[in-house]
Amino acid sequence: MKVAIIGYGVVGSGVYDILKENRGGIERRCGQSVDVKYVLDIRDFPDHPEPDIFVKDFGVILSDPEVGIVVETMGGVRFAYDYTKSALEAGKTVVTSNKELVARHGHEFFEIAKKHNCRYLFEASVGGGIPVIRPLARCLAANEIESVTGIINGTTNYILTKMYRDGQSFDAALSRAQELGYAEKDPAADVDGADVCRKIAILASIVLGKRVNCADIPTKGIRNITTADVEWAESAGFAVKLLGRAVFRDGRAGVSVEPAMVRTAEDAHPLGNIWDVYNGILVEGNMVGRVMFYGRGAGKLPTASAVVGDIVDTVRQPDYGEEFSWAEAEGTTFDPAELESEFFVRMKKTALPAAEKALAPFKFIAERNGEIGFITPAMSEAEINKRLSETDGVINKMRVYR
Amino acid sequence: MKVAIIGYGVVGSGVYDILKENRGGIERRCGQSVDVKYVLDIRDFPDHPEPDIFVKDFGVILSDPEVGIVVETMGGVRFAYDYTKSALEAGKTVVTSNKELVARHGHEFFEIAKKHNCRYLFEASVGGGIPVIRPLARCLAANEIESVTGIINGTTNYILTKMYRDGQSFDAALSRAQELGYAEKDPAADVDGADVCRKIAILASIVLGKRVNCADIPTKGIRNITTADVEWAESAGFAVKLLGRAVFRDGRAGVSVEPAMVRTAEDAHPLGNIWDVYNGILVEGNMVGRVMFYGRGAGKLPTASAVVGDIVDTVRQPDYGEEFSWAEAEGTTFDPAELESEFFVRMKKTALPAAEKALAPFKFIAERNGEIGFITPAMSEAEINKRLSETDGVINKMRVYR
Repeated sequence: MKVAIIGYGVVGSGVYDILKENRGGIERRCGQSVDVKYVLDIRDFPDHPEPDIFVKDFGVILSDPEVGIVVETMGGVRFAYDYTKSALEAGKTVVTSNKELVARHGHEFFEIAKKHNCRYLFEASVGGGIPVIRPLARCLAANEIESVTGIINGTTNYILTKMYRDGQSFDAALSRAQELGYAEKDPAADVDGADVCRKIAILASIVLGKRVNCADIPTKGIRNITTADVEWAESAGFAVKLLGRAVFRDGRAGVSVEPAMVRTAEDAHPLGNIWDVYNGILVEGNMVGRVMFYGRGAGKLPTASAVVGDIVDTVRQPDYGEEFSWAEAEGTTFDPAELESEFFVRMKKTALPAAEKALAPFKFIAERNGEIGFITPAMSEAEINKRLSETDGVINKMRVYR
Repeated sequence: MKVAIIGYGVVGSGVYDILKENRGGIERRCGQSVDVKYVLDIRDFPDHPEPDIFVKDFGVILSDPEVGIVVETMGGVRFAYDYTKSALEAGKTVVTSNKELVARHGHEFFEIAKKHNCRYLFEASVGGGIPVIRPLARCLAANEIESVTGIINGTTNYILTKMYRDGQSFDAALSRAQELGYAEKDPAADVDGADVCRKIAILASIVLGKRVNCADIPTKGIRNITTADVEWAESAGFAVKLLGRAVFRDGRAGVSVEPAMVRTAEDAHPLGNIWDVYNGILVEGNMVGRVMFYGRGAGKLPTASAVVGDIVDTVRQPDYGEEFSWAEAEGTTFDPAELESEFFVRMKKTALPAAEKALAPFKFIAERNGEIGFITPAMSEAEINKRLSETDGVINKMRVYR
């Protein structure tokens, strides 16, 4: 099997490295060797051990009948879209780590792949090296999936961990993440939630078999989370985590991206102890209950490992398979504000009597620095917003997960 | 697709229930309906809603060409072996939750299944409803697996959790587990480690592609764990967990079953926060790093959910697939005593000078009730046994996982 890698950045070069490093095992599992015949990149790599494999013209790859798999690790949408489409139309399977492209155009690519009996695979697009797409689609096939909740962005989880453990401010923790290469110079896609939004859209789309559009997902990042929020959470036995969440009801999904308070103390929530750059994806099925997948959600080799897993799967089973796909559809979502949960509310202390009237009985209440914090009974967000509108002095509120 | 269930106990009846309850979704995912045509059990179920499906003669199932899948949820080896063998020879796929049979005779069944182009599937045999067999075999195909470490027995994890949280003795915690139905009247298979041994043998066999025999796995249960052990662990920031572990080197596996001290405090080990009846399976790959799978490792519906997942997979892809199998082989294991780790040692206080001479520098040392406890530098078990043989007063020692 000959492979072409388009985009020789962090993940693309990781794919090359793994195919070299684990060559023997991969060949054994595939029943044949898997070689990189081309690498497409606009940059030059003069010191690369195989300089002859680099090309700048995608046409070379497209017209070579030996190339059965194209690895798209370019990122972005514009060129990646065209290359992916042409490759699939030429009957070449495309394996990608590009969550933006999968979330936006996956439904088109599945149709093309089906028509040309090849595949469009994207295990690496969510959760880095953690196997989650396949287990979700296949191993849990016996279940009606009730919800998928994930810490699926390592950058923000690292920042929130620094804030929790070291009492750092958001800005200081972000700077540190940038120094370590965990956050990009422009961290917007991570810290404002767009990255999580794409990933949870992909997971929700697989479960439904219908496209969930990012535009229909209310998305809130962590830029406004303060050390006070984090300390309040800790004092109540929780930590602030950025969650992507999809709840399924009657063939539709209520999907959201927002910071929430997740139980870390005794009887912790399974996502409560996911720290640093690690990711965790919690799936609830009507028969299996709670199942969680955990590991490094980003990084060169973990993500490339998921890409190579898709390559091996393709060699073993080259035919199109319905189960990892979804179709364009209307009305696939409902407003996640309808979903009920407990809420943690921080208020000015003076507002306590009004808050008690509107929201008691509380499950937790404490006072810190002239503020009160409490956990409400379970209710919808619409309901709590209505009740809070009657009181002044709300500083922050977050959903509670236990 | 017509299915026969042999053995209508907890798991078998769960399979029946899921095929009814989630009928619509399963039919959609399979592209056809899946019906239970026969149930074989020696008992009578006069109040069952479908009394006509019950049979007492396996010949009825075997000779019915409509039956494509036999679900073996009988447990035990004697009858289950014969039925499984005849079903596979008749070209019927067998899906099982019977870890004892898989561990002992899996290699024979894979050969028969290959010859008759059907399958022998066993996702439910390890980790109940947690998808672990498939992710291990397939999604991590890009990696050389370095180790698999699991809390894979819910009963013992429940007992150890009770001892840790409530300070109960082993006997009291076991009684409570029996009251709740988590432990059997004769708890030997769970508390003495045989169940974990079968499961880790299965996981190790998949990774190697060669059979790891339970007889080659040194197996220690938790019957001798005392509240003092558990309290010592807690005071050092650890908990005692029963671990099945396989480490892979040069095509062989060092496999063990033993209680160990797993880090729960800050910078916890991923298995440190698996409590109650939950299971966790940690896989280390040379590219992906640490990945963990978590969920309910036992129970009617979670386990049945894994069986039904295998049924759906069979309907979609009925042909034999090499990747979930292993062959009989010699010399597949090495002695896990060769593996290096830190050790926690409890001793009489009077032995401290000798212990320091033999084992220092210590990473942790404390005194409780006239005893000392300490954590040694990393070394092999053979080495620590040699060094400890020169000192008196050793009360207990356990491997340390962080």
